[in-house]
Amino acid sequence: MTDVVKMVHGAGGQAMQSFIKEYILRHLGWGTGEIPLSSLDDSGAIDGVVLKSDSYTVKPLFFPGGDIGSLAVAGTINDILMIGGRPIALALGLIIEEGFPFSDLDRILKSISNTAMKVGVPVITGDTKVVEKGALENLVLNMSGLGVRHPYLDHNLEVVKKYRDGFDEKWLLDSNIKPGDKIIITGYIGDHAIALLSVREGVNFEADIKSDAAPLNGLVEAALKMGGVVAMKDPTRGGLANLLNEWSEKSGVGIKIYEECIPIRDSVRNVCEYLGLDPLELGNEGKAAIAVIPELADKVLEAIRQNPLGKDAEIIGEATDEYDFVIMETVIGGLRAVPPPIGDPIPRIC
Amino acid sequence: MTDVVKMVHGAGGQAMQSFIKEYILRHLGWGTGEIPLSSLDDSGAIDGVVLKSDSYTVKPLFFPGGDIGSLAVAGTINDILMIGGRPIALALGLIIEEGFPFSDLDRILKSISNTAMKVGVPVITGDTKVVEKGALENLVLNMSGLGVRHPYLDHNLEVVKKYRDGFDEKWLLDSNIKPGDKIIITGYIGDHAIALLSVREGVNFEADIKSDAAPLNGLVEAALKMGGVVAMKDPTRGGLANLLNEWSEKSGVGIKIYEECIPIRDSVRNVCEYLGLDPLELGNEGKAAIAVIPELADKVLEAIRQNPLGKDAEIIGEATDEYDFVIMETVIGGLRAVPPPIGDPIPRIC
Repeated sequence: MTDVVKMVHGAGGQAMQSFIKEYILRHLGWGTGEIPLSSLDDSGAIDGVVLKSDSYTVKPLFFPGGDIGSLAVAGTINDILMIGGRPIALALGLIIEEGFPFSDLDRILKSISNTAMKVGVPVITGDTKVVEKGALENLVLNMSGLGVRHPYLDHNLEVVKKYRDGFDEKWLLDSNIKPGDKIIITGYIGDHAIALLSVREGVNFEADIKSDAAPLNGLVEAALKMGGVVAMKDPTRGGLANLLNEWSEKSGVGIKIYEECIPIRDSVRNVCEYLGLDPLELGNEGKAAIAVIPELADKVLEAIRQNPLGKDAEIIGEATDEYDFVIMETVIGGLRAVPPPIGDPIPRIC
Repeated sequence: MTDVVKMVHGAGGQAMQSFIKEYILRHLGWGTGEIPLSSLDDSGAIDGVVLKSDSYTVKPLFFPGGDIGSLAVAGTINDILMIGGRPIALALGLIIEEGFPFSDLDRILKSISNTAMKVGVPVITGDTKVVEKGALENLVLNMSGLGVRHPYLDHNLEVVKKYRDGFDEKWLLDSNIKPGDKIIITGYIGDHAIALLSVREGVNFEADIKSDAAPLNGLVEAALKMGGVVAMKDPTRGGLANLLNEWSEKSGVGIKIYEECIPIRDSVRNVCEYLGLDPLELGNEGKAAIAVIPELADKVLEAIRQNPLGKDAEIIGEATDEYDFVIMETVIGGLRAVPPPIGDPIPRIC
């Protein structure tokens, strides 16, 4: 590893995983809890309470389909939902550069309020720091969140137990997946990253693509109410490629996906082809991958599709013991490995 | 108010209070909870769980007596303690500038680990973002924290009730203070701000002053175990002057303090005189002001003094209905008002 921090260490891929293990876990991995830091799941949990913290350094602050405020609420709430939590409160930490316009701050706060109010999760505490001009891009923020066990989590786990002898997990962990489990993706991938790219300085392509940033409370509730879910994770930095590799590694299973089943908009596919990007590596902020026991995968898929944010959901593959890595059957029928990306091809998307 | 954010809006004084009311509360003040955002207490609480979030932008990152890591753990833990919470878990959000040395990061993570381990509060989740060189000073971090009701909080409140008819608060709120309540400060004030100032570029004075940054778990436990505490607050940005004015305003009482009782080191007093600073306005990171019913003030003081971090504690004054603001009897016997500072005289101390 180099002696200084580089962009790739925060990019959600393999370099970041190594950095986290070598630095963060070496010092801070001693903690216990129901979901300790060392499990590297989407949130932590202790004494039945879920805690999540995410900093947002997205650039630019306003983009098609959202802004740093709506993104922050969605991102933090989704990470609490992903392990089986019900978000109940948020904490907002603002770090603002001197000279930042109050009018922009006003828009961002309004957006935080609207997004949080829609899902009934209040901001109950916070903190504001102002730093000198030039010290920051302009504004970054931290959104932390508090959750409790989801009211349908125990029901969901009971359903899993009926079909799976010896299953005894209390949360939806990355390590819960067994061969045969089906993998659902809740809608089109890549929209968020491409929407951001489309408004970056110097980038200009014809594509009316909006960020998908949205809290997934309703969709997750529908899935857990049906029951049979063993794991959930949102494909943010590093995209679906990183997510599936984390699942594969932590659950000790292979994962096989089918290219033709993965929902990707033509517009996103075109931009990716033009720029040489892999849509599987693009970050999303309003999607979830959901691993379900095979017996109930179709029912969970049906339930998810009833929710507006899940109407384009698809089963894209399954866990398998044929491989111990992630592999994709391509549209032309070949097989290719899907390695974890080194970093995120588009930096500062969240 | 101006149309852009200025340093003073993050400086813990009157300008920050106005900014918070005019912007943050206007948009986000709709939330409910046991301690909602609108109460502007040191932490929020909902369903018996305490949540706190603080961003740390201290400059420089390493200073006499600590660093950004130990400061962040102490600051967040203390804010949870101040409302009557017992901290049980932390969440670490790192925002690092590209090019930041891993060796410095290593020191900071070790310091976080040591400080957190001493009080048995693990980091259970986190997030790392890396931004381009020049986008940040070098590193800022967010420390969020989770707490539950302190095991001695109910006992403490029962003791208050014995002496105070109709007292029915469930947490240690800024609004709990009544005329007659004694104000304890747990030790010397101003050390943290002066320690930082002493290592700032271009500043050079002979003074071996160390930051007081430390988690106050033991001290708070001693006070609550004795019982009779109605409010606690740590004099960080804006110092004791800001703290007492917040108490006065929220509790609707006057507060009278006695200059000769306020513990200030000679070295701090000398630097303040030389630079024209008011020690009452200086930030601290290992001190608490504690409001206690008069009947038990001496006993709580005695209990606090048993703790190493409270050995220099003093009763510095009391709440009163003679005034409706903060007033100080000076060493020469005169009276002077102590207004809330506009901002913090020394920026970026936390």
